[in-house]
Amino acid sequence: MSATRTAATGTVYLVGAGPGAPDLLTLRAARLLAEADVVFHDALVHPDTIALAVRAEKFAVGKRCGRHSTAQRFINKRLVDAAATHRVVVRLKGGDPLLFGRAQEEIEALEAAGIRYEVVPGITAALASAAATGTSLSQRGTVRSIALATPRVGEGERASDWARGFASADAGAIYMGLGEGAAIAAALRAVGKPPTLPVAIVENASLPAERVVYTTLAGLAQVDSEQFSGPALLLIGPQFADRRVVAVDARESELTPKVGHG
Amino acid sequence: MSATRTAATGTVYLVGAGPGAPDLLTLRAARLLAEADVVFHDALVHPDTIALAVRAEKFAVGKRCGRHSTAQRFINKRLVDAAATHRVVVRLKGGDPLLFGRAQEEIEALEAAGIRYEVVPGITAALASAAATGTSLSQRGTVRSIALATPRVGEGERASDWARGFASADAGAIYMGLGEGAAIAAALRAVGKPPTLPVAIVENASLPAERVVYTTLAGLAQVDSEQFSGPALLLIGPQFADRRVVAVDARESELTPKVGHG
Repeated sequence: MSATRTAATGTVYLVGAGPGAPDLLTLRAARLLAEADVVFHDALVHPDTIALAVRAEKFAVGKRCGRHSTAQRFINKRLVDAAATHRVVVRLKGGDPLLFGRAQEEIEALEAAGIRYEVVPGITAALASAAATGTSLSQRGTVRSIALATPRVGEGERASDWARGFASADAGAIYMGLGEGAAIAAALRAVGKPPTLPVAIVENASLPAERVVYTTLAGLAQVDSEQFSGPALLLIGPQFADRRVVAVDARESELTPKVGHG
Repeated sequence: MSATRTAATGTVYLVGAGPGAPDLLTLRAARLLAEADVVFHDALVHPDTIALAVRAEKFAVGKRCGRHSTAQRFINKRLVDAAATHRVVVRLKGGDPLLFGRAQEEIEALEAAGIRYEVVPGITAALASAAATGTSLSQRGTVRSIALATPRVGEGERASDWARGFASADAGAIYMGLGEGAAIAAALRAVGKPPTLPVAIVENASLPAERVVYTTLAGLAQVDSEQFSGPALLLIGPQFADRRVVAVDARESELTPKVGHG
C-alpha cells in the first residue's frame, strides 16, 4: 500500500460530460480535457467532446447498460494504474458522475490506493430533458418534491425497488427506463400512481435528434420501444401533460429539433 | 396580442448559471452571455459569470428567497419587453432554471406573449454538493431513488408538504433549507426517517469557501445556522455518514478548500 501511495503522481478527475450536446459541457471539464494526459470515457460520450482531449491517450471503457461487474473492476484498476504514471487522468462519464454513474466504486478504488481525485459535476439527463419540454421539474404550489430513479437492476437488487421513491413524490424522472415501459407503468401503478398520470418520453435530450412524446402511465405500458433509437428519459408528473392543446404556436419549437441560437 | 407577436424580434434564453464556481458554467451559456444584448440575472450569480456578458446591459432582478410574487410578475414583464427590442435576451438563474427556479412563471409569460425561448440547463446544487462530499447520490444496490425538495414555502403551500417526497425515497437533497434545521428534522422524522440518518450540510458548494459538515437528523435539529454564512444544501441518506473515520488521508481534501487542479 505504501508503495502505491508513493508512486501516485497524478490526480483522477471524475468528470461529467453532460447529457449529449458537446456545448453542454462545463468550462472546467473542457479545460481538464485539454490538459489531460489520459482519458477513459464512456461509450456514449459525444465524439466532439472526446476530441477536446488533444494531448491525451483516449480509451473507451464503458459500459453500455448491463455489462458485468468485472468490467467495473477493470476500469477501477486502469484508473489507479494511470494515476501512477500520468499527471492529469480524466474519467469522463455521461451526465453527472454521481447520479446513476457507478462512480462510487471508482472513488473507493482510488481512496484505497491513496490516489487524489476530484469530481467535476455535469448536466444530468433529467434537467436536459426538462429543458426539452419547456416545463419545470418543480412547480410552485403543486410539485415540491421530485424523485430520481432508474429501474436498471444491478446485483442484489429487486426489479421494483426503485419505484418506492415515487410513491409519495409529486413528480419524477426515470433514467434508462425505455424498453421497460410496461414494467415501469406496473411498478408505478403498484405504488399508487393513477393511469392518467402524464408522462413525457424524452429521447436524445439536447441532441439534434431530440424528440418529446407525451403520453400517460396507461399509454407508457403500450409504447413500442422500437420507435426509439436513442437514449431516453421519462419525466412523470402532472406538469408533463401535453401543453400543445392550449398553446400550439408557442410549443411547436419543443417538438421539432431546435433551431440554432445566436 | 398580435401586435406583441409582430414586435417580438428576439429570443429569451433561460440559462442555468450553475452552483457557484464560474467554470461550472456550460460552454453554451458562456457563448450566449458573450452574444447577449441584455442580461437579467439572479442576485447570487458569481460576478465573473455576469462579466462574460461583455456587450450586454445587465440587470440584477432577483430575488433572494422570500420575495413577493409582484416581483416575479415584474421580471416576467421585463423579459417580454426586452424581447421586443433585443435579439439575444438572457435570463441567468442560479443552478438549473427548471429546479426550484420559478422558471415556469417566466415561460408562461413568454408563451402568452408569443415570444421564442429556450432553456439552457445548468449544474444543480445537489450535484455540486455531492461532488464536494465525494459521495454518489445513487448507490448501487442500496440507494436507487433520490428525492429533491425545498422546504421554502410559497403561496398556498403548507410548511411540511415538501417532506412527503422523502417518505419512501432512499436518499435526498434539500435545497435552501438551512436556518430551518429543526423544522426539517421534525418533518423528516414525521415521515418515518430515523434520528440516526446521516446528513451532510454542504455550504458554498463549488466555491473556495466550500465546507462540508457531517451530522445526523438528530444533530441537524441542533445546528446553529449562524455558523453558516453562505448558501447551503442538505444531503440526506445512509451514504452521507462521515467517511473520515475509515479513510482519513484520502478524505481530507474534501473537508478543506480544494487545491487548484492543473
